[in-house]
Amino acid sequence: MKIKVTQEKLSKALNNVSRIAIGKVTLPILNNVLIRVEQKKVSLVTTNLDMAVIDFLPVSNSEDGVVTVPAKLLAEFVSNLPKGETIEIESKDTKVEIKAGKYSSTINGTIADDFPELPEIEEKNAVVYKVGIEEFKNSISQVIIASSNDLTRPALTGVYFNTYNNCLAIAATDGYRLTEKILIDKVESEVKAIVPSSSLQEVLRSINDDDEEIEISFNEDLVRFRLGEVEIVSKLIDASYPDYQKLIPKNNEIKVILNREELIRVTKLAALFARSVGGSIICEAKTPETFSVKSVANEYGENDSEINTPIEKDGRANFNSRFLIDALNSLESKEIEFEFSNHVSPAILRNKKDPKYTHIVMPLNS
Amino acid sequence: MKIKVTQEKLSKALNNVSRIAIGKVTLPILNNVLIRVEQKKVSLVTTNLDMAVIDFLPVSNSEDGVVTVPAKLLAEFVSNLPKGETIEIESKDTKVEIKAGKYSSTINGTIADDFPELPEIEEKNAVVYKVGIEEFKNSISQVIIASSNDLTRPALTGVYFNTYNNCLAIAATDGYRLTEKILIDKVESEVKAIVPSSSLQEVLRSINDDDEEIEISFNEDLVRFRLGEVEIVSKLIDASYPDYQKLIPKNNEIKVILNREELIRVTKLAALFARSVGGSIICEAKTPETFSVKSVANEYGENDSEINTPIEKDGRANFNSRFLIDALNSLESKEIEFEFSNHVSPAILRNKKDPKYTHIVMPLNS
Repeated sequence: MKIKVTQEKLSKALNNVSRIAIGKVTLPILNNVLIRVEQKKVSLVTTNLDMAVIDFLPVSNSEDGVVTVPAKLLAEFVSNLPKGETIEIESKDTKVEIKAGKYSSTINGTIADDFPELPEIEEKNAVVYKVGIEEFKNSISQVIIASSNDLTRPALTGVYFNTYNNCLAIAATDGYRLTEKILIDKVESEVKAIVPSSSLQEVLRSINDDDEEIEISFNEDLVRFRLGEVEIVSKLIDASYPDYQKLIPKNNEIKVILNREELIRVTKLAALFARSVGGSIICEAKTPETFSVKSVANEYGENDSEINTPIEKDGRANFNSRFLIDALNSLESKEIEFEFSNHVSPAILRNKKDPKYTHIVMPLNS
Repeated sequence: MKIKVTQEKLSKALNNVSRIAIGKVTLPILNNVLIRVEQKKVSLVTTNLDMAVIDFLPVSNSEDGVVTVPAKLLAEFVSNLPKGETIEIESKDTKVEIKAGKYSSTINGTIADDFPELPEIEEKNAVVYKVGIEEFKNSISQVIIASSNDLTRPALTGVYFNTYNNCLAIAATDGYRLTEKILIDKVESEVKAIVPSSSLQEVLRSINDDDEEIEISFNEDLVRFRLGEVEIVSKLIDASYPDYQKLIPKNNEIKVILNREELIRVTKLAALFARSVGGSIICEAKTPETFSVKSVANEYGENDSEINTPIEKDGRANFNSRFLIDALNSLESKEIEFEFSNHVSPAILRNKKDPKYTHIVMPLNS
């Protein structure tokens, strides 16, 4: 195996793949990057068994072969070399020599036979969607926040990609809040698949400034995200997702329009005092035009703030301040719609101008 | 106690003092800020028993009195209020009411009697120095890096302020490296005092963009740093400092001029491979003009880089790569002088244009 490539290209590719190749003690080869040259095409591959990252490196000069070397060590070595240097990498058995001007290193690699590669997605059986990169990035960020870390309920640790009414929707819930976003308005092929949130986080981190579109391909067991020269392949979560749409309330009694920044401010002020009561704050609508946010914590003191806005019906409910702040941060508009009922049903937060995104927060017992 | 003040002024003052008032379980009053109004002068005080931070808050409207309230809670509350608001704080017994427009809170405080204040430094017995703020900031940063975290040797956990030859020098050492900087060229009064590094870190964090000068006052037991409206008072470390000047070698055999950026680069490259050998790297001078930095780690591989520079005498020594990188980062020049001897005596790193700063690194056994 032999390649000749500029420092910039190699460093970028190694940074793309090396993030997931860290900290594996039980299976040390997972710390390595597989460097494969096949018919003059160079690919760098890392995996953590659930997910693989593949970077197809554009290289002018190469000789076929395959080897694995510690990913982090190679990435750091190359990133410390001067920009503009031409780097030559050559493997002799499992020794990998790296030369760049006056800098030279030999890294101990391992043979590639034991490297656990994920299967490929066959194009002909795949369901494929394409999404603009900004739309994808914003939508995943808005939704993923409600996914759970609780490994005892695996379905909830992912984001649910599901088609209905000819739309592709993505949704997440941890049982306390629920997010849904219509990712594509009109699709022709159907999918129901739970993508691990950890894989989606890695996809978000892999997006480069010059990416314009992302291609998402599903088969029965896998999803592949293609971003320019980078592919991220992930196993799907093998579980059934709850019927989340019946959790979205249809008839909330109290509907209020609020300035988002102002609601964030008063929620944060109340949250400071709510620490000793599990973050619980009280939202109260009072006719004709007072929306108040309060917290009472015997230990610290108490807090009361008011926002003026037209109110048609009185009511109050308690919410977890952190979930409310998360919801408000994930909305992007100047004004938001806040719908709730007296203590009983979940609150809905929406941007009036972007009905594609729905954020639901469960009330707390008062 | 009553004060009326703008959000900006109060928030800045609370941020200055609240950093050290955190995480005290055994003596909860240390989490509090003392608010004192005495003859219309307002001061905010926090302490961690070793150190106190005092902010003299310029306030137009006030009534005398004193109370303590949780510092972090008050600081966060005020920082979340809108800029431009006028804030009224009024204590009724230990309840502290804070009002700002539509926002109001009551914070549970405590009486000030139990608040442990540090003694004051009497001006007439103090030794006082004044230093330009940039000079102070750079010098402390250059020196403090070599101070120790080892609490079994208290003297080494501080920075030693000492006068000799009519200069005020500051020095630090952890036994593996040593730093010295001449802070003031010509002084009239003498001092020998060890200032805790933790207090100096707090002084560095307290420097504002508009500070121009710092006043440093010593008495037998205390040091006071005065920065505009902020005073930081710290106990001195009661220990004797080692006679560090005899550790600075006078006759190193090998003297090399090196490009600093380039030496940082090759040291970092070697350090990557030196992880399994405690960071140990080999510096070698070879006549007529090769300076090489190497590392050999059987586990990972090996590394060799060269820098061209005139060499008059051959020699080699092993150093801890992290200490070398710290030293190089604390020098600011394009080129540095690197003096060492064959394995035996400490290396000296200096900026040729700034002989006031000396950085010593001990060699490792090869």
